[in-house]
Amino acid sequence: MKKSIECPFQKVFPSQLEKGDLFFMQLAYNEAVNAWTRDEVPVGAVIAMGEEVVASAFNETRTQSDPSAHAEMIAITMAAKSVGDWRLNDCRLYVTKEPCPMCAGATVMSRLGEVHFAVDDPKMGALGGATSLHELPFSNHKPKVFRQTMELECREMLQAFFKLQRKST
Amino acid sequence: MKKSIECPFQKVFPSQLEKGDLFFMQLAYNEAVNAWTRDEVPVGAVIAMGEEVVASAFNETRTQSDPSAHAEMIAITMAAKSVGDWRLNDCRLYVTKEPCPMCAGATVMSRLGEVHFAVDDPKMGALGGATSLHELPFSNHKPKVFRQTMELECREMLQAFFKLQRKST
Repeated sequence: MKKSIECPFQKVFPSQLEKGDLFFMQLAYNEAVNAWTRDEVPVGAVIAMGEEVVASAFNETRTQSDPSAHAEMIAITMAAKSVGDWRLNDCRLYVTKEPCPMCAGATVMSRLGEVHFAVDDPKMGALGGATSLHELPFSNHKPKVFRQTMELECREMLQAFFKLQRKST
Repeated sequence: MKKSIECPFQKVFPSQLEKGDLFFMQLAYNEAVNAWTRDEVPVGAVIAMGEEVVASAFNETRTQSDPSAHAEMIAITMAAKSVGDWRLNDCRLYVTKEPCPMCAGATVMSRLGEVHFAVDDPKMGALGGATSLHELPFSNHKPKVFRQTMELECREMLQAFFKLQRKST
Protein backbone atom coordinates (compact mmCIF):
# COMPACT_ATOMS: atom_id res chain seq x y z
CA MET A 1 0.00 0.00 0.00
CA LYS A 2 1.43 3.35 -1.05
CA LYS A 3 1.50 6.14 1.49
CA SER A 4 -0.54 9.22 0.70
CA ILE A 5 1.62 12.30 0.02
CA GLU A 6 0.44 15.86 0.53
CA CYS A 7 0.43 17.93 -2.65
CA PRO A 8 3.27 20.48 -2.51
CA PHE A 9 1.78 22.53 -5.36
CA GLN A 10 -0.68 25.36 -4.88
CA LYS A 11 -3.62 26.19 -7.07
CA VAL A 12 -3.26 29.27 -9.25
CA PHE A 13 -5.79 32.09 -9.47
CA PRO A 14 -5.94 33.28 -13.06
CA SER A 15 -7.37 36.68 -13.88
CA GLN A 16 -10.92 36.49 -15.22
CA LEU A 17 -10.15 39.40 -17.53
CA GLU A 18 -8.20 37.48 -20.13
CA LYS A 19 -9.82 34.19 -20.98
CA GLY A 20 -7.22 32.91 -23.42
CA ASP A 21 -5.55 29.49 -23.64
CA LEU A 22 -3.42 30.19 -20.57
CA PHE A 23 -6.52 30.89 -18.49
CA PHE A 24 -8.14 27.55 -19.32
CA MET A 25 -4.90 25.61 -18.92
CA GLN A 26 -4.53 27.17 -15.47
CA LEU A 27 -7.96 25.79 -14.59
CA ALA A 28 -6.84 22.37 -15.86
CA TYR A 29 -3.71 22.72 -13.71
CA ASN A 30 -5.93 23.33 -10.68
CA GLU A 31 -7.82 20.13 -11.51
CA ALA A 32 -4.47 18.31 -11.56
CA VAL A 33 -3.89 19.60 -8.00
CA ASN A 34 -7.34 18.20 -7.11
CA ALA A 35 -6.26 14.83 -8.50
CA TRP A 36 -3.06 14.79 -6.41
CA THR A 37 -4.92 15.64 -3.20
CA ARG A 38 -6.96 12.46 -3.81
CA ASP A 39 -3.85 10.36 -4.43
CA GLU A 40 -4.46 10.19 -8.16
CA VAL A 41 -1.87 10.75 -10.91
CA PRO A 42 -2.16 14.56 -11.25
CA VAL A 43 -3.80 15.17 -14.60
CA GLY A 44 -6.55 17.74 -15.04
CA ALA A 45 -8.83 18.64 -17.95
CA VAL A 46 -11.15 21.51 -18.81
CA ILE A 47 -13.43 21.89 -21.82
CA ALA A 48 -14.35 25.39 -22.96
CA MET A 49 -16.85 26.69 -25.49
CA GLY A 50 -16.10 30.29 -26.29
CA GLU A 51 -15.28 31.86 -22.93
CA GLU A 52 -17.38 29.40 -20.97
CA VAL A 53 -16.18 26.31 -19.10
CA VAL A 54 -18.55 23.45 -20.01
CA ALA A 55 -16.65 20.67 -18.20
CA SER A 56 -13.88 20.36 -15.64
CA ALA A 57 -12.48 17.10 -14.29
CA PHE A 58 -9.47 15.30 -12.90
CA ASN A 59 -8.11 11.80 -13.18
CA GLU A 60 -10.12 9.39 -11.00
CA THR A 61 -8.89 5.97 -12.10
CA ARG A 62 -7.87 4.94 -8.59
CA THR A 63 -10.88 6.39 -6.75
CA GLN A 64 -13.36 4.85 -9.18
CA SER A 65 -11.28 1.68 -9.83
CA ASP A 66 -12.01 2.35 -13.48
CA PRO A 67 -9.25 2.33 -16.10
CA SER A 68 -11.37 4.60 -18.29
CA ALA A 69 -11.85 7.32 -15.66
CA HIS A 70 -9.16 9.61 -17.08
CA ALA A 71 -9.69 13.37 -16.71
CA GLU A 72 -10.34 13.81 -20.44
CA MET A 73 -12.96 11.02 -20.62
CA ILE A 74 -14.91 12.39 -17.65
CA ALA A 75 -14.71 15.91 -19.11
CA ILE A 76 -15.92 14.79 -22.55
CA THR A 77 -18.96 12.98 -21.09
CA MET A 78 -19.68 16.04 -18.94
CA ALA A 79 -19.32 18.46 -21.87
CA ALA A 80 -21.68 16.44 -24.09
CA LYS A 81 -24.33 16.57 -21.34
CA SER A 82 -23.69 20.26 -20.68
CA VAL A 83 -23.81 21.28 -24.36
CA GLY A 84 -26.71 18.88 -25.10
CA ASP A 85 -24.94 17.39 -28.11
CA TRP A 86 -22.35 14.65 -28.40
CA ARG A 87 -20.64 16.59 -31.20
CA LEU A 88 -18.19 18.96 -29.57
CA ASN A 89 -16.91 20.71 -32.72
CA ASP A 90 -17.16 24.15 -31.11
CA CYS A 91 -15.34 23.08 -27.95
CA ARG A 92 -11.69 23.16 -26.89
CA LEU A 93 -10.12 20.64 -24.50
CA TYR A 94 -7.29 21.78 -22.22
CA VAL A 95 -5.38 18.98 -20.53
CA THR A 96 -2.16 18.97 -18.54
CA LYS A 97 -0.66 15.90 -20.28
CA GLU A 98 -0.81 14.58 -23.83
CA PRO A 99 -3.87 12.30 -24.08
CA CYS A 100 -3.34 8.52 -24.13
CA PRO A 101 -4.72 6.46 -27.06
CA MET A 102 -8.13 6.06 -25.36
CA CYS A 103 -8.56 9.76 -24.62
CA ALA A 104 -7.10 10.91 -27.94
CA GLY A 105 -9.53 8.50 -29.63
CA ALA A 106 -12.35 10.05 -27.62
CA THR A 107 -11.40 13.54 -28.86
CA VAL A 108 -11.81 12.22 -32.42
CA MET A 109 -15.09 10.37 -31.74
CA SER A 110 -16.59 13.39 -29.97
CA ARG A 111 -15.40 15.70 -32.77
CA LEU A 112 -13.66 18.07 -30.39
CA GLY A 113 -12.58 21.17 -32.28
CA GLU A 114 -9.26 21.78 -30.53
CA VAL A 115 -7.04 19.93 -28.08
CA HIS A 116 -4.45 21.87 -26.08
CA PHE A 117 -2.06 19.86 -23.95
CA ALA A 118 0.84 20.88 -21.73
CA VAL A 119 3.29 17.96 -21.42
CA ASP A 120 4.33 15.66 -24.28
CA ASP A 121 4.22 11.90 -23.74
CA PRO A 122 6.52 10.20 -26.26
CA LYS A 123 5.72 6.77 -24.75
CA MET A 124 1.91 6.70 -24.73
CA GLY A 125 0.77 10.07 -26.10
CA ALA A 126 -1.52 9.69 -29.08
CA LEU A 127 -1.62 13.20 -30.51
CA GLY A 128 1.88 13.23 -31.94
CA GLY A 129 3.86 11.45 -29.17
CA ALA A 130 3.74 7.68 -29.73
CA THR A 131 1.11 7.89 -32.49
CA SER A 132 -1.14 10.50 -34.16
CA LEU A 133 -4.82 9.62 -33.88
CA HIS A 134 -5.80 13.15 -34.94
CA GLU A 135 -4.31 12.43 -38.36
CA LEU A 136 -5.93 9.09 -39.30
CA PRO A 137 -6.29 9.30 -43.08
CA PHE A 138 -9.95 8.18 -43.36
CA SER A 139 -11.24 9.89 -40.23
CA ASN A 140 -14.29 12.16 -40.50
CA HIS A 141 -12.79 14.44 -37.90
CA LYS A 142 -9.30 15.72 -37.18
CA PRO A 143 -9.02 17.85 -34.03
CA LYS A 144 -6.54 20.74 -34.19
CA VAL A 145 -3.74 20.11 -31.71
CA PHE A 146 -1.82 22.75 -29.73
CA ARG A 147 0.92 22.00 -27.24
CA GLN A 148 3.16 23.39 -24.50
CA THR A 149 0.96 25.96 -22.72
CA MET A 150 2.14 25.70 -19.06
CA GLU A 151 4.40 22.83 -20.02
CA LEU A 152 7.02 23.48 -17.32
CA GLU A 153 4.56 23.73 -14.45
CA CYS A 154 2.56 20.65 -15.46
CA ARG A 155 5.70 18.60 -16.10
CA GLU A 156 7.15 19.59 -12.71
CA MET A 157 3.98 18.42 -10.97
CA LEU A 158 3.89 15.06 -12.75
CA GLN A 159 7.59 14.41 -12.17
CA ALA A 160 7.33 15.35 -8.48
CA PHE A 161 4.35 13.02 -8.03
CA PHE A 162 6.09 9.99 -9.51
CA LYS A 163 9.34 10.77 -7.66
CA LEU A 164 7.56 10.97 -4.30
CA GLN A 165 5.51 7.84 -5.09
CA ARG A 166 8.69 5.86 -5.77
CA LYS A 167 10.23 7.12 -2.51
CA SER A 168 7.16 6.18 -0.47
CA THR A 169 6.98 2.55 -1.59
CA MET B 1 -35.77 12.86 -37.03
CA LYS B 2 -35.02 9.31 -38.07
CA LYS B 3 -37.82 6.80 -37.88
CA SER B 4 -37.31 3.88 -35.54
CA ILE B 5 -36.92 0.55 -37.38
CA GLU B 6 -37.77 -2.81 -35.86
CA CYS B 7 -34.77 -5.15 -35.64
CA PRO B 8 -35.17 -7.92 -38.22
CA PHE B 9 -32.52 -10.09 -36.53
CA GLN B 10 -33.26 -12.61 -33.81
CA LYS B 11 -31.14 -13.36 -30.80
CA VAL B 12 -29.27 -16.65 -30.86
CA PHE B 13 -29.31 -19.22 -28.08
CA PRO B 14 -25.84 -20.73 -27.79
CA SER B 15 -25.33 -24.04 -26.04
CA GLN B 16 -23.97 -23.65 -22.52
CA LEU B 17 -21.95 -26.82 -23.01
CA GLU B 18 -19.17 -25.36 -25.11
CA LYS B 19 -18.03 -22.03 -23.78
CA GLY B 20 -15.51 -21.23 -26.49
CA ASP B 21 -14.96 -18.02 -28.47
CA LEU B 22 -18.10 -18.63 -30.54
CA PHE B 23 -20.23 -18.84 -27.40
CA PHE B 24 -19.07 -15.46 -26.10
CA MET B 25 -19.30 -13.79 -29.52
CA GLN B 26 -22.88 -15.04 -29.75
CA LEU B 27 -23.62 -13.27 -26.48
CA ALA B 28 -22.02 -10.11 -27.91
CA TYR B 29 -24.22 -10.55 -31.02
CA ASN B 30 -27.27 -10.64 -28.76
CA GLU B 31 -26.16 -7.38 -27.19
CA ALA B 32 -25.93 -5.90 -30.69
CA VAL B 33 -29.60 -6.89 -31.16
CA ASN B 34 -30.34 -5.09 -27.88
CA ALA B 35 -28.64 -1.98 -29.28
CA TRP B 36 -30.73 -2.07 -32.46
CA THR B 37 -34.00 -2.41 -30.55
CA ARG B 38 -33.08 0.88 -28.84
CA ASP B 39 -32.27 2.62 -32.13
CA GLU B 40 -28.54 2.47 -31.51
CA VAL B 41 -25.87 1.40 -34.00
CA PRO B 42 -25.89 -2.38 -33.36
CA VAL B 43 -22.59 -3.14 -31.64
CA GLY B 44 -22.40 -5.47 -28.65
CA ALA B 45 -19.59 -6.42 -26.29
CA VAL B 46 -18.99 -9.12 -23.70
CA ILE B 47 -16.02 -9.57 -21.37
CA ALA B 48 -15.22 -13.05 -20.10
CA MET B 49 -12.82 -14.34 -17.48
CA GLY B 50 -12.35 -18.07 -17.90
CA GLU B 51 -15.85 -19.36 -18.58
CA GLU B 52 -17.58 -16.55 -16.73
CA VAL B 53 -19.12 -13.42 -18.22
CA VAL B 54 -17.96 -10.45 -16.14
CA ALA B 55 -19.50 -7.71 -18.32
CA SER B 56 -22.02 -7.41 -21.10
CA ALA B 57 -23.06 -4.19 -22.83
CA PHE B 58 -24.29 -2.55 -26.00
CA ASN B 59 -23.70 0.76 -27.70
CA GLU B 60 -25.61 3.55 -25.92
CA THR B 61 -24.21 6.71 -27.48
CA ARG B 62 -27.59 7.97 -28.62
CA THR B 63 -29.56 7.00 -25.49
CA GLN B 64 -26.97 8.53 -23.17
CA SER B 65 -26.03 11.41 -25.52
CA ASP B 66 -22.47 10.48 -24.73
CA PRO B 67 -19.87 9.96 -27.47
CA SER B 68 -17.90 7.71 -25.11
CA ALA B 69 -20.78 5.30 -24.40
CA HIS B 70 -19.58 2.63 -26.84
CA ALA B 71 -20.31 -1.00 -25.94
CA GLU B 72 -16.63 -1.72 -25.23
CA MET B 73 -16.17 1.28 -22.90
CA ILE B 74 -19.25 0.39 -20.85
CA ALA B 75 -18.14 -3.25 -20.69
CA ILE B 76 -14.60 -2.34 -19.57
CA THR B 77 -15.87 -0.12 -16.75
CA MET B 78 -18.31 -2.88 -15.74
CA ALA B 79 -15.62 -5.60 -15.85
CA ALA B 80 -13.22 -3.59 -13.69
CA LYS B 81 -15.95 -3.20 -11.05
CA SER B 82 -16.96 -6.84 -11.35
CA VAL B 83 -13.40 -8.19 -11.10
CA GLY B 84 -12.42 -5.63 -8.44
CA ASP B 85 -9.29 -4.60 -10.33
CA TRP B 86 -8.74 -2.14 -13.18
CA ARG B 87 -6.16 -4.51 -14.67
CA LEU B 88 -8.02 -6.95 -16.89
CA ASN B 89 -5.05 -9.10 -17.96
CA ASP B 90 -6.99 -12.32 -17.39
CA CYS B 91 -10.03 -11.14 -19.34
CA ARG B 92 -11.09 -11.46 -22.96
CA LEU B 93 -13.23 -8.90 -24.77
CA TYR B 94 -15.63 -10.09 -27.49
CA VAL B 95 -17.05 -7.33 -29.66
CA THR B 96 -19.05 -7.45 -32.88
CA LYS B 97 -17.03 -4.71 -34.67
CA GLU B 98 -13.37 -3.73 -34.63
CA PRO B 99 -12.88 -1.19 -31.82
CA CYS B 100 -12.48 2.49 -32.70
CA PRO B 101 -9.37 4.39 -31.51
CA MET B 102 -11.01 5.27 -28.16
CA CYS B 103 -12.08 1.71 -27.38
CA ALA B 104 -8.90 0.12 -28.70
CA GLY B 105 -6.98 2.57 -26.52
CA ALA B 106 -9.11 1.50 -23.56
CA THR B 107 -8.21 -2.16 -24.16
CA VAL B 108 -4.55 -1.15 -23.86
CA MET B 109 -5.03 1.08 -20.78
CA SER B 110 -7.08 -1.61 -19.01
CA ARG B 111 -4.52 -4.29 -19.96
CA LEU B 112 -7.13 -6.58 -21.48
CA GLY B 113 -5.54 -9.94 -22.24
CA GLU B 114 -7.35 -10.71 -25.48
CA VAL B 115 -9.62 -8.84 -27.88
CA HIS B 116 -11.81 -10.82 -30.29
CA PHE B 117 -13.74 -8.85 -32.87
CA ALA B 118 -16.06 -9.93 -35.67
CA VAL B 119 -16.10 -7.24 -38.39
CA ASP B 120 -13.04 -5.33 -39.63
CA ASP B 121 -13.22 -1.55 -39.89
CA PRO B 122 -10.57 -0.31 -42.33
CA LYS B 123 -11.75 3.29 -41.89
CA MET B 124 -11.74 3.74 -38.09
CA GLY B 125 -10.68 0.38 -36.63
CA ALA B 126 -7.67 0.70 -34.36
CA LEU B 127 -6.60 -2.92 -33.93
CA GLY B 128 -5.18 -3.41 -37.40
CA GLY B 129 -7.78 -1.59 -39.55
CA ALA B 130 -6.86 2.10 -39.79
CA THR B 131 -4.13 1.89 -37.15
CA SER B 132 -2.70 -0.63 -34.64
CA LEU B 133 -2.88 0.61 -31.06
CA HIS B 134 -2.14 -2.89 -29.74
CA GLU B 135 1.32 -2.64 -31.27
CA LEU B 136 2.58 0.72 -29.98
CA PRO B 137 6.32 0.19 -29.58
CA PHE B 138 6.72 1.62 -26.04
CA SER B 139 3.44 0.36 -24.61
CA ASN B 140 3.52 -1.63 -21.37
CA HIS B 141 0.69 -3.78 -22.65
CA LYS B 142 -0.14 -5.32 -26.00
CA PRO B 143 -3.49 -7.15 -26.10
CA LYS B 144 -3.62 -10.26 -28.28
CA VAL B 145 -6.04 -9.67 -31.14
CA PHE B 146 -8.27 -12.28 -32.80
CA ARG B 147 -10.69 -11.58 -35.62
CA GLN B 148 -13.56 -12.90 -37.72
CA THR B 149 -15.57 -15.07 -35.28
CA MET B 150 -19.18 -14.59 -36.52
CA GLU B 151 -17.96 -12.05 -39.03
CA LEU B 152 -20.72 -12.66 -41.60
CA GLU B 153 -23.61 -12.41 -39.14
CA CYS B 154 -22.30 -9.28 -37.45
CA ARG B 155 -21.48 -7.60 -40.76
CA GLU B 156 -24.94 -8.41 -42.12
CA MET B 157 -26.57 -6.77 -39.10
CA LEU B 158 -24.47 -3.59 -39.31
CA GLN B 159 -25.00 -3.25 -43.05
CA ALA B 160 -28.76 -3.82 -42.73
CA PHE B 161 -28.98 -1.18 -39.98
CA PHE B 162 -27.25 1.51 -42.01
CA LYS B 163 -29.14 0.61 -45.17
CA LEU B 164 -32.51 0.90 -43.41
CA GLN B 165 -31.43 4.11 -41.68
CA ARG B 166 -30.59 5.72 -45.01
CA LYS B 167 -33.95 4.62 -46.44
CA SER B 168 -35.91 6.01 -43.48
CA THR B 169 -34.46 9.53 -43.65
